[in-house]
Amino acid sequence: MVAPDYGQQGYKAIIASLEDGVLTVLINRANQRNTFDKSLFMDLNHVFALADLDDRVRVVILTAESTAPAFCSGADISGGWDGLWDKEESKEGDHAHRDGGGQLSLTIYRCRKLTIAAVNGHAAGVGMTALQLPFDIRFAWEGAKLAYPFVRRGIVPEACSTYLLPRLIGQAGAHYVFLTGVTMTPKTKVIAPLYQETFATREEVYPAALKLAKDVAQNTSQLSIAYAKGLLQHPGNSIEENHLLDSRAFRIMGKSSDAMEGSMSFMKRRPPNFEGRVGKDLESWYPWWQEINVKHRKAKL
Amino acid sequence: MVAPDYGQQGYKAIIASLEDGVLTVLINRANQRNTFDKSLFMDLNHVFALADLDDRVRVVILTAESTAPAFCSGADISGGWDGLWDKEESKEGDHAHRDGGGQLSLTIYRCRKLTIAAVNGHAAGVGMTALQLPFDIRFAWEGAKLAYPFVRRGIVPEACSTYLLPRLIGQAGAHYVFLTGVTMTPKTKVIAPLYQETFATREEVYPAALKLAKDVAQNTSQLSIAYAKGLLQHPGNSIEENHLLDSRAFRIMGKSSDAMEGSMSFMKRRPPNFEGRVGKDLESWYPWWQEINVKHRKAKL
Amino acid sequence: MVAPDYGQQGYKAIIASLEDGVLTVLINRANQRNTFDKSLFMDLNHVFALADLDDRVRVVILTAESTAPAFCSGADISGGWDGLWDKEESKEGDHAHRDGGGQLSLTIYRCRKLTIAAVNGHAAGVGMTALQLPFDIRFAWEGAKLAYPFVRRGIVPEACSTYLLPRLIGQAGAHYVFLTGVTMTPKTKVIAPLYQETFATREEVYPAALKLAKDVAQNTSQLSIAYAKGLLQHPGNSIEENHLLDSRAFRIMGKSSDAMEGSMSFMKRRPPNFEGRVGKDLESWYPWWQEINVKHRKAKL
Repeated sequence: MVAPDYGQQGYKAIIASLEDGVLTVLINRANQRNTFDKSLFMDLNHVFALADLDDRVRVVILTAESTAPAFCSGADISGGWDGLWDKEESKEGDHAHRDGGGQLSLTIYRCRKLTIAAVNGHAAGVGMTALQLPFDIRFAWEGAKLAYPFVRRGIVPEACSTYLLPRLIGQAGAHYVFLTGVTMTPKTKVIAPLYQETFATREEVYPAALKLAKDVAQNTSQLSIAYAKGLLQHPGNSIEENHLLDSRAFRIMGKSSDAMEGSMSFMKRRPPNFEGRVGKDLESWYPWWQEINVKHRKAKL
Repeated sequence: MVAPDYGQQGYKAIIASLEDGVLTVLINRANQRNTFDKSLFMDLNHVFALADLDDRVRVVILTAESTAPAFCSGADISGGWDGLWDKEESKEGDHAHRDGGGQLSLTIYRCRKLTIAAVNGHAAGVGMTALQLPFDIRFAWEGAKLAYPFVRRGIVPEACSTYLLPRLIGQAGAHYVFLTGVTMTPKTKVIAPLYQETFATREEVYPAALKLAKDVAQNTSQLSIAYAKGLLQHPGNSIEENHLLDSRAFRIMGKSSDAMEGSMSFMKRRPPNFEGRVGKDLESWYPWWQEINVKHRKAKL
Repeated sequence: MVAPDYGQQGYKAIIASLEDGVLTVLINRANQRNTFDKSLFMDLNHVFALADLDDRVRVVILTAESTAPAFCSGADISGGWDGLWDKEESKEGDHAHRDGGGQLSLTIYRCRKLTIAAVNGHAAGVGMTALQLPFDIRFAWEGAKLAYPFVRRGIVPEACSTYLLPRLIGQAGAHYVFLTGVTMTPKTKVIAPLYQETFATREEVYPAALKLAKDVAQNTSQLSIAYAKGLLQHPGNSIEENHLLDSRAFRIMGKSSDAMEGSMSFMKRRPPNFEGRVGKDLESWYPWWQEINVKHRKAKL
């Protein structure tokens, strides 16, 4: 793959830039309260698919301007709910019901790099689902107003959120937030576990995410992260099945040059220089799970 | 269905009353420390099944008198453990082993309305399992003494609790509380995540639950809650399967009059007036999961 | 089974002693920073298998000297990663990839007694996986430095940890700690739920674990714990399946002499004296799950 230039992808709803292995994706619809519309869906879906394939990208951070009215205030429903489905696809019939939020959640979830949502503003609806739940890490501003108001709008939680949120914070929190639709902050008990770190001001969120991202980019093996993320998402259906999977990944990586470099750099107390690349060095065993096709027709991407 | 009169059901162990869409169920055995006996099982099992079918009921709150000795002090074992099984059924043989707590847990779990346990007193045994775990929300008095003392009585955790509790609070807490049987309060670290909100006095618990219940009754779509609760309980076995399910529910509700009303009321900043009804407006697709029959013979309800 | 003498097993890497039903296992490699090597694997794997079979053992506590440099500072990689696999087995080919940490995790997980890790020192790598995650309870010193540095060493999380940790603390914490490899303490938000209790000093950890262990040993039924632990680990695939399982276990134990003793001692406010034994009194129904064989050849134990 030719290394892509993130400034030349024709994005309108986002600004993407790569530096030191960290791809920062800025939501660029502050004038529309960073609502989720077709353009934001298309751009985000594209950039996360690209980041997955680009070996230079070690970490992806999604964030917004800290002066924007919101991190993402939900779907743009100025044209009614119909704007949320692809018009061409909808013509094909009732079976063409894949929501954009759900498609985006899958793309982000499947990205084999570390993903961080730096939630430095208010968030609601899809801004609380697709734009946060499929990420590995969520940092948040403590003053952010957060809500899953679906049941107050006559619709339902989408974007794979009823799969993801219970796994992230447990069923007690998930039932509460989805079935009441109340507004919270990252300090509210039921939603607090979603955010691995929180910050007093909006301005602190992205720099903290960037600091962690650079640390990871410099000091970890990208192959290790790809295998580890695969094991977290596809651990096997029992502890025994997990044992067969992780011991296999452990044996594969244990023989690798990255493992050699890892132990050498550790013993010599110097930074590691891992040379394995996701694009060419994953064993044929990877992926060990069946990647399920959910498209109702051939994808275009 | 003819709208039932909750005051005319012949309940002895509970008092049930419906107001503004909120059905309050009061445990009425204070003189017996609100122990769980055959009469309480029968009445609770009946009222939650009725609430599921009654479109006027939007939220069910289970609570006790705040002056009672306990919210529920566990099973009534004054006659030994044998009182916990149906005598007629037990005659049929060893295979007739469905515990009353478990049957009640299933009835509450399957109720398609929002359910809240307002735990305003001490709770133990079945008062910590069937009377709390299958609910969507649990509010508690911070001074409540709580325990799962099964292993200290020579029996085992029942009422589907080894399925429900790990999903609610994680395996770390569940192993601790079930395998030690120690007494806790809602502030004890291992059990704290079970309670979405806690209160300093017994008197605050029910009013707080009622306030939330009225908010939900007035401002949410009952169809949205039925679909959302279904998605939380039956999310599919993978993120992809969840995508196929939630995007279908999202498409169904997105076309509904409730969604129209939801977006209109939101944009006009007025309270919504949702007209969809669980009794007649759920699509034939619902339920999308197989409802497993666990009776060993025809149910009588 | 003849009652084993834990002082006569020839252990070199551990010291094991049984008193009042509590088997204390002390990691005895302080001079090697309590690293995990072949000898520690062999001794731990043996003692937990023995404890499972010995009816005198009610609780097993794993701990280290509170003056040791660490609880367990990870794998001994002084000879490179190759020391982590059995040399004889490795000769058999790539399919012989069961890691020692994973084998030990399974042995500890399958022990039918209450297991407690008393983490009174720093812990990293396998000291955070096999030596903690398969336990029922973890107590920790608040000053302990904790890390899962696998991705910083060019390897992957092992020892069934990608199965166990998400179930213990949720996916939000698990993705964070495994994919960044950062150093934490038991008070760090993402890992805090792993520890059911924490203590200000190293010296407090083991005595607190011992106190709980003695309480459990004296006041619980060993049959109840075996069934309850089985239900927590093998709850069935749905709430209905769990209902069929737990109501069966409840019926079995409800008829037992332990249940009689449990209710009698409770009503007479005296300590119970449970006589049921795991070695001879579990019903033939136990285990109700298929115990999967993960060995690639006949085990030697």
